[in-house]
Amino acid sequence: MSNAAYPDSVRRLIEAFAAMPGIGRRTAERLAFHVLRQSPEEALELARAVQDVKKQVKHCSICWSLADADPCPICKDPRRDATTVLVVEQPKDLLVMEKTGLYRGVYHVLLGRLDPLGGMGPESITIDALLVRLDQPARNSRGEAVTEIILGLNPDLEGDTTALWIAREAGERGIRSTRLARGLPSGSQLEFANPAVIGDALKGRTSL
Amino acid sequence: MSNAAYPDSVRRLIEAFAAMPGIGRRTAERLAFHVLRQSPEEALELARAVQDVKKQVKHCSICWSLADADPCPICKDPRRDATTVLVVEQPKDLLVMEKTGLYRGVYHVLLGRLDPLGGMGPESITIDALLVRLDQPARNSRGEAVTEIILGLNPDLEGDTTALWIAREAGERGIRSTRLARGLPSGSQLEFANPAVIGDALKGRTSL
Repeated sequence: MSNAAYPDSVRRLIEAFAAMPGIGRRTAERLAFHVLRQSPEEALELARAVQDVKKQVKHCSICWSLADADPCPICKDPRRDATTVLVVEQPKDLLVMEKTGLYRGVYHVLLGRLDPLGGMGPESITIDALLVRLDQPARNSRGEAVTEIILGLNPDLEGDTTALWIAREAGERGIRSTRLARGLPSGSQLEFANPAVIGDALKGRTSL
Repeated sequence: MSNAAYPDSVRRLIEAFAAMPGIGRRTAERLAFHVLRQSPEEALELARAVQDVKKQVKHCSICWSLADADPCPICKDPRRDATTVLVVEQPKDLLVMEKTGLYRGVYHVLLGRLDPLGGMGPESITIDALLVRLDQPARNSRGEAVTEIILGLNPDLEGDTTALWIAREAGERGIRSTRLARGLPSGSQLEFANPAVIGDALKGRTSL
C-alpha cells in the first residue's frame, strides 16, 4: 500500500528519512514512527540539531573539512604542500593526522565511504568535489595542480573499495596514488597479530 | 575517539540520530555527514517535516492510531466492541482492516515491532500503553475491560516474536489472545504456495 494513507506531514517525514543514504523504505517508516512516538521535546531536538548544523557549521568548499573559514586554514596555508592531497573518510581522521604534526600536504574529507550494499554510492560522498580538484587546478587549494593522492581510508573492505575507486580515477588523469602503509602496529606483540596483519607486514617488509 | 572533536552542533545531531531505534553510532555519524553535505534546503526539509509531524499529527492516546481527535473516533464509537483489541504494527494495517468493514472491535497500533537484533525492544514500541489498557479498564476505550486480544502482526519472524511477547503478557493477566488465521491466500494457486504456507494450511484445516 502506498503512503497516500498517511497524513501529508507523516508522508513527508518518511520521504525525508528515505532520502538519506542506506535508509530504505521500511527503516524510514520505522524512524518516522519513532518521531510520532517521541515526546515533542525529543523530536524537536532532532529538528533543531539539523537547523543548527546547517546554520553554524561551515565546511571548506575545497577539502570539505569542518572549519569556520572557507577556504579552511589548511587549504590557505602557504607552508602546506597543496600538490599532495591526503584523502580521509571523516573529519575525525583529519584531526588524528594533524595531531601527529607529520603531514605537510592538504586534505580531502569524503564524509563517508563507498558501500554499494549499504546504499552509499559515489554520489553519497564528496568524491565529485575531489575529482573537480584533480581536473581543475584553480579549484584545488591555493590553485596548485595535484600530483599525488595519498589514500588514508580505513583499512577494511569498504575503505579499500573506496581507495581503489579513487586510485583508478586518479590514474586515468595521470596522477599518482599511494596508500598508507600496513603492517604491525608499533608497540604491539607479534603473538596477538592476526593473519591479515602478518600478511601485510610480510608483503610490505623493508630493508634495514 | 570521542565526538569531542566535533563542533557542538554536529555532536548534537549525531546524538539525536543515535537515539533512534536501530541506529548505531556509525550510522548516526553517516547520517549526520549526509546532512552536512546536503544543500540547506534539503536538510531543512527534514527539520521542517519533524516539526510539522509533531505540530499537525495527533494520535489517539488510547490506541495510538493517527487521528485528529483524542480519543479517536473508533475508541469513542459506542457501536464498537471495546472489550476486543486488535493489535497491529502500523497505522496502515489499521486502515487495511477497517476497509474490509468486518471488524467491530477496537485497535492498538504498536508503531513498530520487536526486533532485538535491530535495536527494537519493548520500549521502542507502544507495548507499555497496551499493558496499561489491559491493567486499567479506565484507560481502555470507553472504560471497558479488555477480554480478548487479537494479534494482527505481520506473519514473519519479528511479527511472531512480538505476538508471542504480547500473548504472554496477556496470559499473565488472564486475558485471552488469538492471532489471525494463516493458510492459503484466497484466489491463489496451490502449486505456487511455499512449504510454510502449506504447513499453516494443513495445521489450521477446518471441517466442512
